[in-house]
Amino acid sequence: MADETEAVDWMEVDHRVIYGDTDAMGVVYYGNYMRFLELARGALMRRLGKPYGEVEKMGLVIPVAEVGVKYIRPARYDDEIVIKIRVERLTGASIRFAYQLHRKESDELLATGFTRHAVLDGKTGRVVRIPDELVQVLGGRKE
Amino acid sequence: MADETEAVDWMEVDHRVIYGDTDAMGVVYYGNYMRFLELARGALMRRLGKPYGEVEKMGLVIPVAEVGVKYIRPARYDDEIVIKIRVERLTGASIRFAYQLHRKESDELLATGFTRHAVLDGKTGRVVRIPDELVQVLGGRKE
Amino acid sequence: MADETEAVDWMEVDHRVIYGDTDAMGVVYYGNYMRFLELARGALMRRLGKPYGEVEKMGLVIPVAEVGVKYIRPARYDDEIVIKIRVERLTGASIRFAYQLHRKESDELLATGFTRHAVLDGKTGRVVRIPDELVQVLGGRKE
Amino acid sequence: MADETEAVDWMEVDHRVIYGDTDAMGVVYYGNYMRFLELARGALMRRLGKPYGEVEKMGLVIPVAEVGVKYIRPARYDDEIVIKIRVERLTGASIRFAYQLHRKESDELLATGFTRHAVLDGKTGRVVRIPDELVQVLGGRKE
Repeated sequence: MADETEAVDWMEVDHRVIYGDTDAMGVVYYGNYMRFLELARGALMRRLGKPYGEVEKMGLVIPVAEVGVKYIRPARYDDEIVIKIRVERLTGASIRFAYQLHRKESDELLATGFTRHAVLDGKTGRVVRIPDELVQVLGGRKE
Repeated sequence: MADETEAVDWMEVDHRVIYGDTDAMGVVYYGNYMRFLELARGALMRRLGKPYGEVEKMGLVIPVAEVGVKYIRPARYDDEIVIKIRVERLTGASIRFAYQLHRKESDELLATGFTRHAVLDGKTGRVVRIPDELVQVLGGRKE
Repeated sequence: MADETEAVDWMEVDHRVIYGDTDAMGVVYYGNYMRFLELARGALMRRLGKPYGEVEKMGLVIPVAEVGVKYIRPARYDDEIVIKIRVERLTGASIRFAYQLHRKESDELLATGFTRHAVLDGKTGRVVRIPDELVQVLGGRKE
Repeated sequence: MADETEAVDWMEVDHRVIYGDTDAMGVVYYGNYMRFLELARGALMRRLGKPYGEVEKMGLVIPVAEVGVKYIRPARYDDEIVIKIRVERLTGASIRFAYQLHRKESDELLATGFTRHAVLDGKTGRVVRIPDELVQVLGGRKE
């Protein structure tokens, strides 16, 4: 039987490294990868038909509760990088995205990472169950 | 007769450059100087007894309407820099701060700049006259 | 007689605002506009056939010597903005770019700005005359 | 018998949140915590008598190979936060720092995290054993 969660394809977004992304070691600053992950999340939600702004209109906020990144090879100024994202896991009140970053030209793996997000009521700030509408958008199956 | 505006002394705040401030040219990224200017503004308001949070409680917001920076010498990783700020001009509904950045060790001038701020009603977003209380805090004389 | 400098068209690049661009005032942080200007400069140089990396291979560096930005209307999360850039002026050893930022959907003007760049020898750090090759790429006429 | 690694005390550094740290959710942007961690690392190395610049003079670079952060409570504009750091583990060619972030006023725990660093030869980029001098500075015992 097919695992529906696994069936979710990676979605890709491109970014060309600017000086503002880099630091004096000559490579992208480790903290600026968080911008790249956010860029991919925003693009994924839009492509799934539910831009993050609409999630907020549903009365929800989905802040980052945890992040992890492994830096494998450095990215440099003007490198075109590909950020891949997919929904890795949906539980009752939490969403986990997985990421892979590659150098576009060589397809070298630059970094891998994940973010785990809490789903909160936008007014009370309390944890809520992910509404079915959002589960369907995210293409997953709640565990 | 003394010029009261001129009488306002420069206030100083220190900052040590981190990698996150720099870029792959090996120096502080030009956009990150804006963080340094903000750091000095916040420290000035606090030292004048009116932290920016209290300005907001007065029902005001004071966004940056214009910025200008001249970059004279580069700042590098781990440099300790001194950011000097003073109120340069107060008009009916606008505040202008002047800045000078120096390398602490050598006292070399690194950059000069200014920010001009509109004073707005926090609810309507409309331009308002600067309340007398704020004029007095800023130590100036409205022109 | 036509003014050649004026003949240079505006070049455009798009950017969608992410949370990483914004601040707690709910709008794009004033310092992050510097990233947008750099994004446009990099795209312009690439489109003119001389990506900045190739300028460095010519033995030159072109750091920002001065920046000025006027903030007219705020940009918000998920806004798609258009950054327009053109070469405004070429002098013997300096390049000045002009910028206009618009909200894409409404075409409202968000900000205007300029950057002035010194042209330096990459090894000595000394100011040099802009090589003819670069003058031609930038489409201007030295004043 | 006491565990020497555990004996290493937490070192603290303070930071007051500026608008440039925050995002339109009204809290510190998740990526900007990486700046806070770097701030603490730099301060720790300096306090241990070996500022990072001197590590580079030893011919080493110590890039971040992995980062993990758990966000527990949000930090807001003008919050004074305390960033605690300690060397968590030293292995042959890798250093791991642990971090805790607290709100200064209330001592609430805001976030926990770690960074793992590779130790590389600055010229070849190859992994090297951590020199004894650096092991002693970091106060640990290689495992």
